[in-house]
Amino acid sequence: MILSCPNNILRPSIVEELLQDKRFFSSLPKHGPLAEYRNVASIDWRRMRFSFIDLRGLELQHRLYWLFRTSEPFIRGQTVRDLPTDERRRLAMVQLQLLHRERLFNYETFVERPDLASVYYATIAEYDLSLLVRLTVNYLFFTGAIRMYDEPNGRLAHIIEQTEAGQITGSFALTEVGHGTNARAIRTRATYDPVHREFILNTPDFEAAKCWAGNLAKSCTHMIVWAQLYTADGECHGISGFLVPIRDRYTLQPFPGLLVGDLGEKAGLNGVDNGFVSFQHYRIPRDHLLARFGDVNEVTGKFESPIDSAAERFALLMGPLVLGRLNICIVSQTLLAKALTIGIRYSAVRRQFGPTTDAPEVPILEYQLQQHRLLPYLATCVALRMFNRWFASVTGNAQIRMLRAEPIESALLLEIHIVASAVKPICSWAARDGIQDCREACGGHGYLRMAGLADIRVDNDANLTYEGENNVLLQQVSQQLLGIRTRGDYAAFALMSPLGSLTFLSDYGQIMQQHHECSTVEQVQDLKVILDTLSWLTAYTLEQTYRRAQELLGEGGQKFDVRNNTQIFYAKDLAIVFGERTIFSAFCDFLETMELAPERTYLTRLAELYGTTLLLKHMATLQSAGYFNMDALRLVQEAIIRLLPIVKRDAVAMIDSLAPPDFLLNSPLGASDGNIYGRMESELMAGQNVTGRATWWNEIIPSSSKL
Amino acid sequence: MILSCPNNILRPSIVEELLQDKRFFSSLPKHGPLAEYRNVASIDWRRMRFSFIDLRGLELQHRLYWLFRTSEPFIRGQTVRDLPTDERRRLAMVQLQLLHRERLFNYETFVERPDLASVYYATIAEYDLSLLVRLTVNYLFFTGAIRMYDEPNGRLAHIIEQTEAGQITGSFALTEVGHGTNARAIRTRATYDPVHREFILNTPDFEAAKCWAGNLAKSCTHMIVWAQLYTADGECHGISGFLVPIRDRYTLQPFPGLLVGDLGEKAGLNGVDNGFVSFQHYRIPRDHLLARFGDVNEVTGKFESPIDSAAERFALLMGPLVLGRLNICIVSQTLLAKALTIGIRYSAVRRQFGPTTDAPEVPILEYQLQQHRLLPYLATCVALRMFNRWFASVTGNAQIRMLRAEPIESALLLEIHIVASAVKPICSWAARDGIQDCREACGGHGYLRMAGLADIRVDNDANLTYEGENNVLLQQVSQQLLGIRTRGDYAAFALMSPLGSLTFLSDYGQIMQQHHECSTVEQVQDLKVILDTLSWLTAYTLEQTYRRAQELLGEGGQKFDVRNNTQIFYAKDLAIVFGERTIFSAFCDFLETMELAPERTYLTRLAELYGTTLLLKHMATLQSAGYFNMDALRLVQEAIIRLLPIVKRDAVAMIDSLAPPDFLLNSPLGASDGNIYGRMESELMAGQNVTGRATWWNEIIPSSSKL
Ligand SMILES: Cc1cc2nc3c(=O)[nH]c(=O)nc-3n(C[C@H](O)[C@H](O)[C@H](O)COP(=O)(O)OP(=O)(O)OC[C@H]3O[C@@H](n4cnc5c(N)ncnc54)[C@H](O)[C@@H]3O)c2cc1C
Ligand SMILES: Cc1cc2nc3c(=O)[nH]c(=O)nc-3n(C[C@H](O)[C@H](O)[C@H](O)COP(=O)(O)OP(=O)(O)OC[C@H]3O[C@@H](n4cnc5c(N)ncnc54)[C@H](O)[C@@H]3O)c2cc1C
Repeated sequence: MILSCPNNILRPSIVEELLQDKRFFSSLPKHGPLAEYRNVASIDWRRMRFSFIDLRGLELQHRLYWLFRTSEPFIRGQTVRDLPTDERRRLAMVQLQLLHRERLFNYETFVERPDLASVYYATIAEYDLSLLVRLTVNYLFFTGAIRMYDEPNGRLAHIIEQTEAGQITGSFALTEVGHGTNARAIRTRATYDPVHREFILNTPDFEAAKCWAGNLAKSCTHMIVWAQLYTADGECHGISGFLVPIRDRYTLQPFPGLLVGDLGEKAGLNGVDNGFVSFQHYRIPRDHLLARFGDVNEVTGKFESPIDSAAERFALLMGPLVLGRLNICIVSQTLLAKALTIGIRYSAVRRQFGPTTDAPEVPILEYQLQQHRLLPYLATCVALRMFNRWFASVTGNAQIRMLRAEPIESALLLEIHIVASAVKPICSWAARDGIQDCREACGGHGYLRMAGLADIRVDNDANLTYEGENNVLLQQVSQQLLGIRTRGDYAAFALMSPLGSLTFLSDYGQIMQQHHECSTVEQVQDLKVILDTLSWLTAYTLEQTYRRAQELLGEGGQKFDVRNNTQIFYAKDLAIVFGERTIFSAFCDFLETMELAPERTYLTRLAELYGTTLLLKHMATLQSAGYFNMDALRLVQEAIIRLLPIVKRDAVAMIDSLAPPDFLLNSPLGASDGNIYGRMESELMAGQNVTGRATWWNEIIPSSSKL
Repeated sequence: MILSCPNNILRPSIVEELLQDKRFFSSLPKHGPLAEYRNVASIDWRRMRFSFIDLRGLELQHRLYWLFRTSEPFIRGQTVRDLPTDERRRLAMVQLQLLHRERLFNYETFVERPDLASVYYATIAEYDLSLLVRLTVNYLFFTGAIRMYDEPNGRLAHIIEQTEAGQITGSFALTEVGHGTNARAIRTRATYDPVHREFILNTPDFEAAKCWAGNLAKSCTHMIVWAQLYTADGECHGISGFLVPIRDRYTLQPFPGLLVGDLGEKAGLNGVDNGFVSFQHYRIPRDHLLARFGDVNEVTGKFESPIDSAAERFALLMGPLVLGRLNICIVSQTLLAKALTIGIRYSAVRRQFGPTTDAPEVPILEYQLQQHRLLPYLATCVALRMFNRWFASVTGNAQIRMLRAEPIESALLLEIHIVASAVKPICSWAARDGIQDCREACGGHGYLRMAGLADIRVDNDANLTYEGENNVLLQQVSQQLLGIRTRGDYAAFALMSPLGSLTFLSDYGQIMQQHHECSTVEQVQDLKVILDTLSWLTAYTLEQTYRRAQELLGEGGQKFDVRNNTQIFYAKDLAIVFGERTIFSAFCDFLETMELAPERTYLTRLAELYGTTLLLKHMATLQSAGYFNMDALRLVQEAIIRLLPIVKRDAVAMIDSLAPPDFLLNSPLGASDGNIYGRMESELMAGQNVTGRATWWNEIIPSSSKL
């Protein structure tokens, strides 16, 4: 796999100086309940942190933290937990404008250092995912669509400028009430009127109303609307994007001819105002069509496009949506890290039970059960972090080219699509499960709103659905892999893999011959053995799925049905194991770049834990297919049992390297001083009407209600 | 296994008449999007429903539904979704009093038909779990503790009467800020003052404050407080319960000498006011001690008890807490059914994609992936329902005896403890995962608050933690099973099993010899084969865990450490597979009692799906240990693949038999007419300020904020 992460290549003396810099590495309490764990740690949390974020990243992060810590609307967002929905939305919108005005990261910075985008996004997500969603809708989807799909002379460039100047706010509407995943079937129409040189947008019924768009319900002035383009002759030319004015920028009154409304409260992300809108023969100027891949001729009124097929145009238009998927990987990993900070620190402080009733109680982190609930997620979280780091760096250039609407070689685009679509579900589901386990691992106190876990959980929940519903994305991965397999032989994979994630499949013959006679614990946790095994499993599942599909087709099955009926145990498993292999491989590659030091040793243990957990999950297949012998199950279990206490030793220090500052974490259960009870007490007592009577006390006393 | 469920033995003509009774079986729409599925169903949903709830149950349910539908506070609870926390609490409290005044089910009814309690609780949970929690705290924990632990003459009987008369409200406090699971280590003190014949309650510090008690923050007048009983000589006699007045019943002002406060917002259950309280040398009369298992002598001031050991007394006191665990099993199953109603009906209506771009789109329930996300949970939900039905009926008598403080044979008590502690985690986790999958299966619309799934999810979340944290309960199960194994040989299990759940283990020798050479799909989905396999797996895991522990003890391990270090892959798996076997067995037994009819056939398919899903989960162990051959994995997968479309055919009808009425379900996505879009639109448009400007519009426009 190609490795081109920006390296922290600095003179050692400069590194040491940096590690002392309090702006980037605040000093952690030397006493208190967490110090016990910190004192026995073999790793230096600052050195660890510096191994996955460089100086530019640290500086960017520091400036964001500073803003969040010192600016009133950001402070308010962290101090009041139970803000009403309307106030959360207001705050997030005000924060968006504030943040934008700071210009800590913008299009220019992006073009210079695209990988820094992941630091920027992750840090904002650490603060509040609602803010990040508003931001990406405005600056990635809205202006991004114009950058990518405006006709080559940039007739809508002024819209980008106005957005960048904070004069207008954008939204992005692909989804309709009745159509999400099957975006090609959307029913909003844009009919060209050659007389007035306008498009007429129309929404036939509620099911065709645009739905879910962020910033739409109350905030946006403009919107990119995707609609079926019809010419006056009644012909449909497939989907195109349009810039649509929604509200007056000075009064925020919606324009006549459209009905825009509020989707109301959601499971989470309540700082975002998702809305719906329907158009009643709503007219927009002809040049509001995003016309890179097709335009109506001003004179003839005919649709003209360099690309003949509407299906191909659709694919071109949807391709860049992959950018959003990369974000989800970063965001999920960030939310998981946040939850683990709470779960692990709490478990290191919380004591329950002891060897005897007299003996001091033991931190629950000491229990095997508790370790097993938390530490495999710690390993997963770090694995995802390494994957994201790699993927951000190798796709940076392609991202820039996408945004500049420059051509990209199709193999690269396809590989980015395959990898992002495989890993996005894995990341977001790992976060889902890990956050949940942290919640449970904190017992009752984890159920308090102030613990923070409930909010992290519901925010992450959206990651499973938007930017491509997880299950549907996995289908696309397997479809693509099967497509390559069907079109050529396995050798084709090497040609299709500029990033190297598919290359291994071209050795199909050799892979299938390999198998491991494991007889020791050391063998099953060897990183090379694990990677080989995941490679084998990918190849095996690919071939099994291919054959199963061929069989069903041979029996006369229709393509559509065959595809749908080879999902479980076949195509879905294929997509997941491919994604897991890619992540694991990126993790191993990262380890290779580290100098020999305790930090590398520890990360190696985490990679082993991540890897063995994967082997365990797939054990039935590995054994049934004869890849592993019958001892492998117990060996892998034994490996995990042994790794847990080793990983536990440095878990607190590792979390220190991943944790957001206390101010952002905002959880009495997870603060860096481990003073959980003191912080709980303060926060409880500072609440409103904590000890007073209920306002409704007189409604429930005997006299008034019963006699 | 003993089977003594109340049977619906009625003359067939009466049954037919009943099935036509609109009070119990409302008629479902004959047209509309769900009718397609209803028309092809082989089962009659009413007959199905009547097979697991009898006439008395239907009547009780009907009266509750009527109350919920017609009484203002209940209506309000269902119409406004985003009530502020304080208003939710008020409503739940008012509802509690209303419900209680209706006397639809009380202690007397319970004694007559204890199994009806599960119908009562389940129906209230269908409405709102917060209400049920308030109710069980008040009538099960609070008055229950007095019934069970008051001294034999019942010196506190008037408190029960006052509660029943609605004059006072109770709470129940075992947990402290610093101690939950390890309840024995609580630090609240009750010191006897022989001079004034009073107990002095004292809370040494915030960590020892009572915490989490429901009804405490704002509503209760009295509370059962568990504390370490000290006599004047400074000796500690272990934990006892005390009746403690908290607030004046007419003013609801807290009494001086205690500080009672609010835990604030929680992840869910926000209709319950969980609180904390600390005591400052707070005095209560001597006779407020719950003195069944020990009292202070009025004259000598000495502690006297029929039971010598404080540990044994503690066990006696905690034993009946098992009653709460039964409730969780019922509640989790109910919440899962509610979520599945939404998930399955939505999937039957929602269409996305089709064989070609021109063809009509296909309901997503037709896709294998979607079936696999929902239908195994449908099978699990029904299995749990059958288990609960059985367990409620076989433990009914024991429950009555517990509440009457009558002696119960220890083997029965122990078996109830083992089974309830094994199944409670399985139920609540199944609900957790199933609800989540329903949320995801509904795509973006499932993320709307109005979909209802977000609320179901957070409410169920508490079930994982209270009434015994899941992981800790599983430890207790394995401890008990290992204890029996260690004390005698396997024959002992038959003697310890009045309910029959452990009996199979006495055939250990025979079980271990059995193994299945499966070569057909029919074999692996045979209910007998599955039950045999689960029996084998339980016995195998028990013996493996036992040996592993012996080995570690032999190497000099301390008992405490050995126990903690044999949890994952051993003791925890043991507890879970034992619970799964018990559930599966109850399901199979239920099927035996059904007459041969399409309903039985369909439930058999569900049992097969549940069973094969379990086999798949444990496949690696089954194969590694040589129980199954290498073909078994593919056979079981094939069985599931074939069962899904069969189960799908009747899934809508099956859900009709499990679903609460639309009014209670309260989700546009899951209504019985399948009119999802129409209902979404109405509810959206009926919201507040749906299409208007934000109140904060002027804060985000260019002029005011940027120039
Ligand atoms: C918080 C949030 C913010 C959003 N913001 C925006 C936004 O700004 N702009 C915008 O345009 N959209 C937005 N969306 C919409 C989002 O993109 C869609 O929810 C997503 O694309 C899924 O579509 P859907 O909800 O219609 O689900 P559907 O496509 O209806 O899918 C429902 C279920 O069916 C399953 N399914 C569908 N097809 C198949 C198949 N062929 N085989 C098997 N299973 C299938 C899916 O897996 C899914 O579980 C947002 C959504 C959320 C939740
Ligand atoms: C909504 C709600 C309502 C409640 N209502 C009441 C009420 O009315 N009255 C009342 O008294 N209490 C109530 N509780 C408290 C509840 O009973 C406790 O939360 C529960 O007993 C767990 O205790 P804990 O929260 O202290 O967790 P802890 O015991 O601190 O456990 C924390 C974590 O450590 C793990 N752990 C602990 N010991 C071990 C071990 N030996 N080995 C391995 N892992 C271990 C647990 O699995 C858990 O994950 C309520 C709780 C909630 C959430």
